[in-house]
Amino acid sequence: KRARDYKLKIGVMPTGKLNGITDVEGVKVGHITLNIGDTVHTGVTAILPHGDNIFQEKVPAAIFAANGFGKLTGTTQIIELGNIETPIILTNTLSVAAGIEGLLDYTLNYKGNESIKSVNAVVGETNDSYLNDIRGRHVTKQHVLEAIESAHSGQVEEGNVGAGTGTVCFGYKGGIGTSSRKLPKNLGGYTVGVLVQSNFGGVLQIDGVPIGAELGKFSFSNQLLNNVDGSCMVVIATDAPLDSRNLERLAKRAFLGLGKTGGIASNGSGDYMIAFSTAKDLRTPHTSKTTMLKNSTLHNDETSPLFMAAIEATEEAIINSLFAAKTMTGITGNKVNALPLDQVLPLLKKFNRIINEQ
Amino acid sequence: KRARDYKLKIGVMPTGKLNGITDVEGVKVGHITLNIGDTVHTGVTAILPHGDNIFQEKVPAAIFAANGFGKLTGTTQIIELGNIETPIILTNTLSVAAGIEGLLDYTLNYKGNESIKSVNAVVGETNDSYLNDIRGRHVTKQHVLEAIESAHSGQVEEGNVGAGTGTVCFGYKGGIGTSSRKLPKNLGGYTVGVLVQSNFGGVLQIDGVPIGAELGKFSFSNQLLNNVDGSCMVVIATDAPLDSRNLERLAKRAFLGLGKTGGIASNGSGDYMIAFSTAKDLRTPHTSKTTMLKNSTLHNDETSPLFMAAIEATEEAIINSLFAAKTMTGITGNKVNALPLDQVLPLLKKFNRIINEQ
Amino acid sequence: KRARDYKLKIGVMPTGKLNGITDVEGVKVGHITLNIGDTVHTGVTAILPHGDNIFQEKVPAAIFAANGFGKLTGTTQIIELGNIETPIILTNTLSVAAGIEGLLDYTLNYKGNESIKSVNAVVGETNDSYLNDIRGRHVTKQHVLEAIESAHSGQVEEGNVGAGTGTVCFGYKGGIGTSSRKLPKNLGGYTVGVLVQSNFGGVLQIDGVPIGAELGKFSFSNQLLNNVDGSCMVVIATDAPLDSRNLERLAKRAFLGLGKTGGIASNGSGDYMIAFSTAKDLRTPHTSKTTMLKNSTLHNDETSPLFMAAIEATEEAIINSLFAAKTMTGITGNKVNALPLDQVLPLLKKFNRIINEQ
Amino acid sequence: KRARDYKLKIGVMPTGKLNGITDVEGVKVGHITLNIGDTVHTGVTAILPHGDNIFQEKVPAAIFAANGFGKLTGTTQIIELGNIETPIILTNTLSVAAGIEGLLDYTLNYKGNESIKSVNAVVGETNDSYLNDIRGRHVTKQHVLEAIESAHSGQVEEGNVGAGTGTVCFGYKGGIGTSSRKLPKNLGGYTVGVLVQSNFGGVLQIDGVPIGAELGKFSFSNQLLNNVDGSCMVVIATDAPLDSRNLERLAKRAFLGLGKTGGIASNGSGDYMIAFSTAKDLRTPHTSKTTMLKNSTLHNDETSPLFMAAIEATEEAIINSLFAAKTMTGITGNKVNALPLDQVLPLLKKFNRIINEQ
Repeated sequence: KRARDYKLKIGVMPTGKLNGITDVEGVKVGHITLNIGDTVHTGVTAILPHGDNIFQEKVPAAIFAANGFGKLTGTTQIIELGNIETPIILTNTLSVAAGIEGLLDYTLNYKGNESIKSVNAVVGETNDSYLNDIRGRHVTKQHVLEAIESAHSGQVEEGNVGAGTGTVCFGYKGGIGTSSRKLPKNLGGYTVGVLVQSNFGGVLQIDGVPIGAELGKFSFSNQLLNNVDGSCMVVIATDAPLDSRNLERLAKRAFLGLGKTGGIASNGSGDYMIAFSTAKDLRTPHTSKTTMLKNSTLHNDETSPLFMAAIEATEEAIINSLFAAKTMTGITGNKVNALPLDQVLPLLKKFNRIINEQ
Repeated sequence: KRARDYKLKIGVMPTGKLNGITDVEGVKVGHITLNIGDTVHTGVTAILPHGDNIFQEKVPAAIFAANGFGKLTGTTQIIELGNIETPIILTNTLSVAAGIEGLLDYTLNYKGNESIKSVNAVVGETNDSYLNDIRGRHVTKQHVLEAIESAHSGQVEEGNVGAGTGTVCFGYKGGIGTSSRKLPKNLGGYTVGVLVQSNFGGVLQIDGVPIGAELGKFSFSNQLLNNVDGSCMVVIATDAPLDSRNLERLAKRAFLGLGKTGGIASNGSGDYMIAFSTAKDLRTPHTSKTTMLKNSTLHNDETSPLFMAAIEATEEAIINSLFAAKTMTGITGNKVNALPLDQVLPLLKKFNRIINEQ
Repeated sequence: KRARDYKLKIGVMPTGKLNGITDVEGVKVGHITLNIGDTVHTGVTAILPHGDNIFQEKVPAAIFAANGFGKLTGTTQIIELGNIETPIILTNTLSVAAGIEGLLDYTLNYKGNESIKSVNAVVGETNDSYLNDIRGRHVTKQHVLEAIESAHSGQVEEGNVGAGTGTVCFGYKGGIGTSSRKLPKNLGGYTVGVLVQSNFGGVLQIDGVPIGAELGKFSFSNQLLNNVDGSCMVVIATDAPLDSRNLERLAKRAFLGLGKTGGIASNGSGDYMIAFSTAKDLRTPHTSKTTMLKNSTLHNDETSPLFMAAIEATEEAIINSLFAAKTMTGITGNKVNALPLDQVLPLLKKFNRIINEQ
Repeated sequence: KRARDYKLKIGVMPTGKLNGITDVEGVKVGHITLNIGDTVHTGVTAILPHGDNIFQEKVPAAIFAANGFGKLTGTTQIIELGNIETPIILTNTLSVAAGIEGLLDYTLNYKGNESIKSVNAVVGETNDSYLNDIRGRHVTKQHVLEAIESAHSGQVEEGNVGAGTGTVCFGYKGGIGTSSRKLPKNLGGYTVGVLVQSNFGGVLQIDGVPIGAELGKFSFSNQLLNNVDGSCMVVIATDAPLDSRNLERLAKRAFLGLGKTGGIASNGSGDYMIAFSTAKDLRTPHTSKTTMLKNSTLHNDETSPLFMAAIEATEEAIINSLFAAKTMTGITGNKVNALPLDQVLPLLKKFNRIINEQ
């Protein structure tokens, strides 16, 4: 069940139909989940901006390294050229190379890319070593290819799946979460969709309710929860015609959504926001037939509602990851509990955020 | 009255003694408030990192331009050299030049600076034109000098004072606000103090309670509140021995505090965070007697509690600015109401954030 | 006389008609030169991207802070919004406030700007204190307005004029210099024009000839020339349709042109490159009638010839500033010689860079 | 033979003993060169900041992405934390993943790192596809480990070795090059060493002599040399006690050295500068026994001679790579000639840069 199934309603804007990143038309998501024995709990999540040859039809994109203590690859080229030319792969910290190899196989072997000799692979990660045998590097490029191939539109699976299989968030089981917002017609009617791989700490707040404080479970509390080298990857998709400059601004706002869940971007938490636009008009052909790109982009003045949407969707995607994730026991017997609904729902009621929970 | 006077308790960390930026030893704040006739409602706020010759004893500093749509001066030198060499001046958007002139007068005439020929003036601003005759440029360098001269330690005046005289926040009267956090001994015992000039929009949340949503007053609601070209200046002081790199990281976290109040960093809101350290050991002499600087800085691993402190203090400083500000009528009869306590306090009770308000 | 008058031919690309920044159609330059008594040697240079209302018709722009140890204002907004909305003013380090005030007067009083309440003034500077009574702050906003009003197309005056009146470069008299390059038709036919305010040190090279080394006059040589707190401002104009991202890339290349003259961007040399495009299609209206901007921009792949043009024009503009500047005696009797042609021309011959100098 | 063997003397500063990056005490370099059949011409170069456990004894470091169109990994963490925790690996564009895997094997298996679960692998690359079967991805992690294990102090092999095996520079055979500068005692006595992997284009200048222009062989000349997707990696080592902020400034200056060889940082040329300091006092222990780092760093004012040294050493390292590289025929019969000394040496004499070449 997701946050809204418990009558939680984060923010003031309406969601898209699926309340997920795939509400942005054309976006596809695929997961490969590895649960092998007691010790392997990891995986791969692939996000595809569109279903065509991404290398040949690059999409405008931007990065915000809220806390650059992470291994996200491809950053400087995204910043320099303002676009993404591969699917986005999320996995664990020590499997970034597998992510790159998978993206190279995918791209080099894609029909039409026979002469391509340079690929900017975008691979993000968080550290799932509390539950997963991360040093074993169990993700292979084959897993990455499978995640890409399995990508689909429609509902995104959340919780202990894909790159979120072994992650921990606010001391509870984290994972993959997603959400979206749809602007009203008079503000453009655009959709902003977010997908997160949640693996960080702080003082959990759910829709403003101080869960972490009430349960006495937060960073630097007695239970000292900040011992995990965490991170949060946030992927933001929109069909709004934003160029890379305004996408960077959009990415920055997603960071505020993380903050609203109580995240503090602790020293060890490599928190990145990757934003891209699916606006067809803004795709950059790898080989331009003409020297000019004709494009229509939103005026700076029109960006604010999109900013608000990114904040709300990021907050809700993180909360969704917590509601979806299940208790897991992993390497060396480490156990991480799911968000304790028996404690959380009463608190949400006490603080009047849900009225008739069923 | 401040937020805590209404039993609000934002965050999990204890405040400093004054719950203000001046809890950081040596920091001084001065205001000059200009209320002249119906149309002039503006002013100057000066923040001094220490009481000595700041030019000769520069302090480590950093900037985070969360939204660079503003006129903050001195940014590139702060980034390049990692320090601040003047007081920080806050004022209105069109009075930045007066701010610079005031800082030049102050610095060039300071005893010991007779041969100085270059000064990096740090002047931030927000746009108070909804209430103030901003085009009249009523702030003079004399006002700036007076703000500096009047700077003092101890309690900081909040609300409609200094650079906050004519500002608007979430559709209510904004202004100057301040707050602080003090880390426990085992986390270093350091203090983080924040001062804000609040002048921005979004969807107001007070300690997690959705005030803006409940009152139907937020950006893109029917009352369309986002017509003001706002901004928020956030100044963060700490006695923790952070170098400029870690101060930049601290500044970034303050942005999360803004987000927790419901701020969305809208297109027109130039939101800046300026952080500095007062650690004596880290002052940079203008003229170094030796070629080497010996300094002791905190290890990266020790920064997380400071990050949390910056988030909490920023959130509370903004809320304090709203609680302190009073209703004001300004240019062309524009009226901005103070935060309506008669509506807000019941909501804070309804959502169970204050229990025994008196 | 300019470098080419001595048969020097820097680079491999042809110049524009005037070999100046004003070869970019629509660009205007104005100087106000202040030589008052023995001690005042300073001034103002204004560069206008076009002759219309710049605030209402903003041009795409970017900044590269090669060495941010300077006071250039307006930087964060240029980066955030990707455009410039005022003329660019160059002056001395302590007269930046006058530059801002002049730009505010100009913009606020411009017909059609009656309701404008925010202006991002772009004022660059270098430190002319070796010759000028910089602490006297002799530049007024009236001078700034005059520089703007006097701006014209056509030949740009070089040497000891405007903001270059009192500058020093490689130990010789520096000043204003300009140059341009025009791409061949098959590479787009665009023009890149550069204007510099030269005031820095290093080891002078003229078209590859080691003048500084041969004359034993360079930074850290016995004559220790690095005692001036210098800087170099480089303004790059082009009619090529580049967005702000590619303009930033263009600006970075101009830094290489500075390097080719022997500049080292020493610690105290605040070196900035400001690039803008005059492409009409890319102007951003302040008040957009529609939410979308339709624009045609160059594909990334087409930028390289423009990069080469920016490097060559910057190198030549700096050399032109040296050839044009005249010996000056200033404050406290400080004397700076013009480039000693009697020594330099023989060296250029010895190293075979000029063959038939007349 | 190297540039100085032909009596070329680039710059005004003296070199270190070996005129190589290994003049910086403790720095080691290792190459693995792959020449297999006609089509495989690639390799790996490893640069070790010191001979101890680099992960446990991180060194201060910085990146300057002069042109971010490349795949350098590890950038955001270097920027965020200001240090490097692995050797630096250079290889070809599509072998970055092998580089990461090699660094992970090396680091995870290093004695003392048994519990390490996060490693920031720094792998740079240029594109050698004109000569090398880059799509074959012939570099393995085993090659990377061998390059690291073979790293040694003393003379560095230059030209067609390691990561420079298949590179092309200014249309001639490029490769690995190195150079160093040693400051005089009164400027600190520090050493700056540079190693480059040269693979870019422009208009070749050797010590100021316009080789490319004279030979009619340069970008956008008739022979259109800019069809290679190039790049230049520049690694700068110094024993000067610079923190990451000043190392970034040092890295920026290296870009000027590239410019002085005629490089233009064309659109497709991903040019990166990585700088680190070997100053023992500035090493950051992975696990700090204390919360504070005591360190002595150079005052900003002392950095200028180091900047000049970085410029000169980078210029000479690139020129050395050209002098050392040999003619190579590679994939699909593509042939790239070595720098034609029979044409170049006469030009160097004609322009009077070498007098008695033997």
